[in-house]
Amino acid sequence: MSAATAPQPIDVEEAVRETARRARLAGRALATATRATKDAALHAMADALVVAAPRVVAANARDLAAGRTAGMSPGLLDRLALTEERIGSIAGALRELAALPDPVGEVVRGSTLPNGIRLRQVRVPMGVVGMIYEARPNVTVDAAGLALKSGNAAILRGGSAALHSNTVIVEVLREALTGAGLPANAVQSIDEHGRAGAVALMHARGLVDLLVPRGGADLIQTVVREASVPVVETGVGNCHVYVDASADPAMALSIVMNSKTQRVGVCNAAETLLVHADAAPGFLPAALAALHEAEVVLHVDDRTAALAGDVPTLPATDEDWATEYLSLDLAVRVVDDLDTAIEHILRWSSGHTEAIVTSDLAAEHRFTTELDSAVIAVNASTRFTDGGQFGLGAEIGISTQKMHARGPMGLTELTTTTWHVRGDGHVRH
Amino acid sequence: MSAATAPQPIDVEEAVRETARRARLAGRALATATRATKDAALHAMADALVVAAPRVVAANARDLAAGRTAGMSPGLLDRLALTEERIGSIAGALRELAALPDPVGEVVRGSTLPNGIRLRQVRVPMGVVGMIYEARPNVTVDAAGLALKSGNAAILRGGSAALHSNTVIVEVLREALTGAGLPANAVQSIDEHGRAGAVALMHARGLVDLLVPRGGADLIQTVVREASVPVVETGVGNCHVYVDASADPAMALSIVMNSKTQRVGVCNAAETLLVHADAAPGFLPAALAALHEAEVVLHVDDRTAALAGDVPTLPATDEDWATEYLSLDLAVRVVDDLDTAIEHILRWSSGHTEAIVTSDLAAEHRFTTELDSAVIAVNASTRFTDGGQFGLGAEIGISTQKMHARGPMGLTELTTTTWHVRGDGHVRH
Repeated sequence: MSAATAPQPIDVEEAVRETARRARLAGRALATATRATKDAALHAMADALVVAAPRVVAANARDLAAGRTAGMSPGLLDRLALTEERIGSIAGALRELAALPDPVGEVVRGSTLPNGIRLRQVRVPMGVVGMIYEARPNVTVDAAGLALKSGNAAILRGGSAALHSNTVIVEVLREALTGAGLPANAVQSIDEHGRAGAVALMHARGLVDLLVPRGGADLIQTVVREASVPVVETGVGNCHVYVDASADPAMALSIVMNSKTQRVGVCNAAETLLVHADAAPGFLPAALAALHEAEVVLHVDDRTAALAGDVPTLPATDEDWATEYLSLDLAVRVVDDLDTAIEHILRWSSGHTEAIVTSDLAAEHRFTTELDSAVIAVNASTRFTDGGQFGLGAEIGISTQKMHARGPMGLTELTTTTWHVRGDGHVRH
Repeated sequence: MSAATAPQPIDVEEAVRETARRARLAGRALATATRATKDAALHAMADALVVAAPRVVAANARDLAAGRTAGMSPGLLDRLALTEERIGSIAGALRELAALPDPVGEVVRGSTLPNGIRLRQVRVPMGVVGMIYEARPNVTVDAAGLALKSGNAAILRGGSAALHSNTVIVEVLREALTGAGLPANAVQSIDEHGRAGAVALMHARGLVDLLVPRGGADLIQTVVREASVPVVETGVGNCHVYVDASADPAMALSIVMNSKTQRVGVCNAAETLLVHADAAPGFLPAALAALHEAEVVLHVDDRTAALAGDVPTLPATDEDWATEYLSLDLAVRVVDDLDTAIEHILRWSSGHTEAIVTSDLAAEHRFTTELDSAVIAVNASTRFTDGGQFGLGAEIGISTQKMHARGPMGLTELTTTTWHVRGDGHVRH
């Protein structure tokens, strides 16, 4: 991992730790800030971004030019690109955040104990939340807003290809915070320190309360492996649709098509289709034709190939079962029974979302209780796994781990709790 | 870290991974076991332990003899020792677990979305829970019972000084599980693999869903630093009592004495006393005398020393502020104001429990909202931080981290959730 090449050698690790200490102090102010103050700051940030849009677009143009020179793909360039219109909708997301309830201060549990002690479990911010993500400048605003609303100070590390955009955005957000009476250090970037800064952030134990990587599988695995601070693993979605023997074929086709093709390149898109052997002859020929028509490349087992007719297919290997394509590719397998479908998913899934299409209550019960994924969809598309769709409001990512948060992470998942024990001189006997 | 010295060299890492795979399979059976089945198994385990008590005591005698030879301290020997009476009360704890509600299956949140999708967030077991602890054979039973009740398979690694005791206990528990119709591999020990086994467990990523270290600060820090599997940090308690200017001196004395001396060597005992300068002259002379009378060794700042009269004191250093004594020692400091008390605690606390004695509502509000610890006690002893005292029933440890669980961890904290999305052919537009 190469160190940042600065004219004066600087101690990146210490610089990042110092950033985190400033974040901790800012976090103390945020933790006791009222919802009204935080919401006013979110509106101020939104307004400031709209006013600064021409400046942000100009900075973004530099990033885009560098990206083109470096041969960045059209897809990545599109995710990097900002227009005044896009900035308007990013600002709109901040205003929507302001409209969401504040998780901080919620009393999660409470009771009066037999000895008269009043016990309360109260939701409080984590403190300092780190975010490592790719060259998508909208995530900079999103992450800053979510952290602020949940009372946390944010330390941001975006992809270096978005450096100029992020620098201006963070500057604008910090000015808006100050204007709203909150510490500018509630939002800090460590982009200037390059990859060494990201590594230092992963190791700032005791200074970072939660680190959320957001991006592709490589980024996430690197962070999970490297980090010694608490991490929530997000996003890798090797999602399955299982068409049961009892499935309504039209419903199954609609759900398969939606899960695979409604939006490609997102973690809640389906990557493997499993079809019960009894349903396969009646379902697969038409389904494979429709998928092919939609330009889906089909990686299939022998039994599926035998039902493909004129539809071109490629032979599926174990690598296909394991892959999150994030593209118009789909692995397809015919399974003997529900048990085989469950075993397949337990073996290959990343634990994100699995869908079953069935009319059989017993199959539905087994599918929902025997699998081990964050979300199980019954007669619904995998694409519903989403904080907005779930009614959680904003979303910081989709957790595929079991600790702390599982599935779409909203504001609540950026908080922890503390216990208040109130007595009148109580001592223990 | 030395490898286990077996006659045939074995691959400890692979052996532990294989143990974890067996646990995963057993966990699948536990995840769908009914509460009735699990409770019957807990009773069977309790009965079997009572029947096997003479055998357990005999094995324990071998551990005790080896411990004495190795010069183990009386305190550690006491924690290692099992008698038929102690086994009876350990078995009783299993029966109490059976009486607790089952967290699995609880619907945490649920709603019908505007599009008609029925959404449920349901509590499910973590899967495989690892436990690394010291030479306390009661923890073996405790951990196995908590894991079973919460539907998790347990992998246990106890202190090597308890090897003979733990081997017999695990054998007895496994037989009881089989008799109750549950897989024996719901409880497995890796003690035979020594420290290399513990290290392998810490690195069994993807195979262990949660690892809980339970023991002294060194053990916990080693696990937190080494582990690549998800860990909950438990137990280190550098707890503070702050006596505010407005405190009732009699209440303050009672709470200080209870927090420090009611039980020594536990994580929720107080280690530092902070006294507001205005309260110090009226409170400290009598308090220091009472503490001295109770054989507490006092490590004090200059202002406290000036009020100590004939009571012998030692000068406090930064090390005293940082230390979890776990003994009849107490650090004492006079502070100018509440701000200084809060700054002291934010700097030195391990984030476990802090108590304030006050009659001032504003001081109470600031103390409860500006600190950053798992439990804040107001006019109550620090000793109340305990799953049993909180009414959570059994307790696997006290989390001092913010992720996943904070404060006393009961059965709920050994679970995660999954989302069920039920539609009627819903697709996303």
